[in-house]
Amino acid sequence: MINKKIIFQVMGLLLLIEGFFLGISSLVSLFYGQYDFSALITTSLICFSTGITLWLFTKNADKNIGKREGYIIVSLVWVIFSLFGALPFILSGAIPSFTDAFFETISGFTTTGASILNDIEALPYGLLFWRSLTQWLGGMGIIVLSIAILPMFGIGGMQLFIAEVPGPTPDKLHPRIKETAKRLWGIYVLFTLAEVILLKIGGMNWFDAVNHSFTTMATGGYSTKQASIGDPGFSSPFIHYVIIVFMFLAGTNFTLSYFALHLKFGKVFKNEEFRYYIGFIIIFALVITVALWYFEGYNPEKSFRDSLFQVVSIITTTGFVTADYMLWKPFVIIMIFALMFFGGSAGSTGGSIKIVRITLLLKNSYQELKRIIHPNAIIPVRINGKSVPPQIISNILAFVVFYMLISIVSSIVMAALGYDVETSLGAVAATLGNIGPGIGRVGPIENYAHIPYFGKWFLSFLMLIGRLELFTVIVLFSPAFWKK
Amino acid sequence: MINKKIIFQVMGLLLLIEGFFLGISSLVSLFYGQYDFSALITTSLICFSTGITLWLFTKNADKNIGKREGYIIVSLVWVIFSLFGALPFILSGAIPSFTDAFFETISGFTTTGASILNDIEALPYGLLFWRSLTQWLGGMGIIVLSIAILPMFGIGGMQLFIAEVPGPTPDKLHPRIKETAKRLWGIYVLFTLAEVILLKIGGMNWFDAVNHSFTTMATGGYSTKQASIGDPGFSSPFIHYVIIVFMFLAGTNFTLSYFALHLKFGKVFKNEEFRYYIGFIIIFALVITVALWYFEGYNPEKSFRDSLFQVVSIITTTGFVTADYMLWKPFVIIMIFALMFFGGSAGSTGGSIKIVRITLLLKNSYQELKRIIHPNAIIPVRINGKSVPPQIISNILAFVVFYMLISIVSSIVMAALGYDVETSLGAVAATLGNIGPGIGRVGPIENYAHIPYFGKWFLSFLMLIGRLELFTVIVLFSPAFWKK
Repeated sequence: MINKKIIFQVMGLLLLIEGFFLGISSLVSLFYGQYDFSALITTSLICFSTGITLWLFTKNADKNIGKREGYIIVSLVWVIFSLFGALPFILSGAIPSFTDAFFETISGFTTTGASILNDIEALPYGLLFWRSLTQWLGGMGIIVLSIAILPMFGIGGMQLFIAEVPGPTPDKLHPRIKETAKRLWGIYVLFTLAEVILLKIGGMNWFDAVNHSFTTMATGGYSTKQASIGDPGFSSPFIHYVIIVFMFLAGTNFTLSYFALHLKFGKVFKNEEFRYYIGFIIIFALVITVALWYFEGYNPEKSFRDSLFQVVSIITTTGFVTADYMLWKPFVIIMIFALMFFGGSAGSTGGSIKIVRITLLLKNSYQELKRIIHPNAIIPVRINGKSVPPQIISNILAFVVFYMLISIVSSIVMAALGYDVETSLGAVAATLGNIGPGIGRVGPIENYAHIPYFGKWFLSFLMLIGRLELFTVIVLFSPAFWKK
Repeated sequence: MINKKIIFQVMGLLLLIEGFFLGISSLVSLFYGQYDFSALITTSLICFSTGITLWLFTKNADKNIGKREGYIIVSLVWVIFSLFGALPFILSGAIPSFTDAFFETISGFTTTGASILNDIEALPYGLLFWRSLTQWLGGMGIIVLSIAILPMFGIGGMQLFIAEVPGPTPDKLHPRIKETAKRLWGIYVLFTLAEVILLKIGGMNWFDAVNHSFTTMATGGYSTKQASIGDPGFSSPFIHYVIIVFMFLAGTNFTLSYFALHLKFGKVFKNEEFRYYIGFIIIFALVITVALWYFEGYNPEKSFRDSLFQVVSIITTTGFVTADYMLWKPFVIIMIFALMFFGGSAGSTGGSIKIVRITLLLKNSYQELKRIIHPNAIIPVRINGKSVPPQIISNILAFVVFYMLISIVSSIVMAALGYDVETSLGAVAATLGNIGPGIGRVGPIENYAHIPYFGKWFLSFLMLIGRLELFTVIVLFSPAFWKK
């Protein structure tokens, strides 16, 4: 029997949290004196009253959260948050369509950043703030999910490092999760504050600085401007480099940042995922720098900056842009498209396949060459000096196969809606990977407004399963999950 | 120390074989009284004299062929055959450029079928026959390679079935290879003859029937007509269905055909790779049939025939076409592009990733879902009722990772030569997978003539490594191979 009461109780508690942050957004609206105050405060009150009602009806719930309840809660949270979080857009009339509002909100909470807005600047400040906040909260959720919760389920890519994290043990779940979450959220908040200050120094106003810091640290990529960081007001190279640095940090395993802040740099640089992460960025950024300098005639600094910005933005799955990469050479577009399948590090706020999985796949392939030459030698795959058990390799393999399968089938679905090959592949890669901008008609200067309703719901589902490491949601569709 | 002498000796013997088949081609030319006779007979004599010379100088060679010699021989054979086999095209003036002639010939021997010819009908009969023969010989080579030789190296996907094949054992290599080869070549010849007769009945002339039978059984796809099977002379549905059946057989493990001919049908239908092979064909053919009927307005029979023909042609990596699929809806193009990564069965003449690998990847992914739900249960991946050892899964994983890595990097290289995204992806998928026609500017009614020289050499290399199951060639580039 599934413990339904505890599921409702957790939902209730989480709605109180959402109500709280909606309340804060309504204060922002109040401060700027705009028309969105009533929509925000109404939704806040709806969240509070629903939350309290749920909590009252489930007070006597059995506090045991088993694995199955865990899966259901995790998958539900993002959906429920998005359903309630979409209300201010609808109530205020800023996004009248329910489909569009839901798409925009789940794109926020999943830290994707795919938008249906054709005129972002027209949005009132309270809603803009709430839109950025959905990403920041989504990022918070992902940190605790990927570092503290999913490893217990044996998924998410962090199982490997479980010993290194001050993580949960089955017998005393709550205190450990809380402790881990507190430490890592501390870093998340710290980095966000640091970015706000640096962006302010770089010339942004406080509002833009706060919003972009929220969405950078979440690797979300929502901007307050239609042209993203390519907006003329943000043209200072200092702003670009600051955002590059914080996107990079947001795509780094937060436990490594924890070690770095405690001056344990040895632990950071010994981490192989981190080294591959840097390695991939350097290789892609260098090739694209040369391409921009040679083919597009940019000056060397701009070539380097535009290349690095786009590479870091895509690999971390943030999705900010400072240039329309669809205008670059086709081989650069293929490189950027390929990067969409890399993703941030495990334990970061980045999405997509993730560096640790790519790294292990590459290592296993290289070891296999050695095994072919020396068939009788035992040649394990190692990461951070430890050999990786075959079950983990098999798990990663399954993840990547599902990822590719979903990508291909979904691209066929999108193409069946009438899109060309490039747009179909791009929209799927950009939503499943929680990136935001794709290629083709969902490229960096385009958006998702033109996608038909069915397509928007379909892509919303991709954002959700991509964000929750596929298995979390897929197991819910497996009969074996519901048996017994 | 590598036993160089035995390598030269084997090359010498194989050149005698090539000389023999060039001699036969020259007789075809003589029969039709065309200008290509002297080019063919000259090349035949060059092969014979080189072969005899090599044999004379290496008579006293140590007969031990180790693994390393094996790898080198296998990789060299296709290159040497293509170098000599290109001569008739150059000497006759039919393809004046050495690059083009080599491309056309290695595309033949690797059973790819990618052509640089803009006017195939202008070629004299002897050269057309030789061109088809390169594919038929390539197919023969692949059968013995994939069923008898590569499993010894632990690569190629057939390791799994090694017990089921009357295959080689390390102590008595030669008699076993010979025995296996004889049996399977017998089936290959038998099927070729059967197809010739059926195509003749269908209305082809003898010459076209023989040529197309050669290139069908090899899953090669060279035609004597510029429009391939779409030529007005071949418009009879009977011809289409005959070719569909034989492409299907050519993409089936030849040991299964051996069992079928010995009326052991139980063994055939119990084979899971075979069942998945049929399953994939049915799914893709049905969806595309509906698409052609609904979107293109074809009548139901033509929808079904054109869909099935193209699906079987692409999945078996043959590359014949009866329709320009680039004119179909984008979602069908994506499906066809995805099919390019499936390939025939292990132990067939088909190329690409191969059904057994795809099947095992899918099964492993499905089992992983069960493992996530029941973490303490031991849930092995099974095929044909036997559980698959983790080393095999790891080997398949490595293969697919290399395949994807090579595909992506090569697509970037092709795009850097100035091609658009679609053409770059298509040219790479179609050559690495030994298919022939791709998508974009190398689509079904286009060819490879417009590709610059560097691109032609690059794609020739892809055909080679694709044909030799990647590892065979890649290990040659690994320092560990040459050590000790």
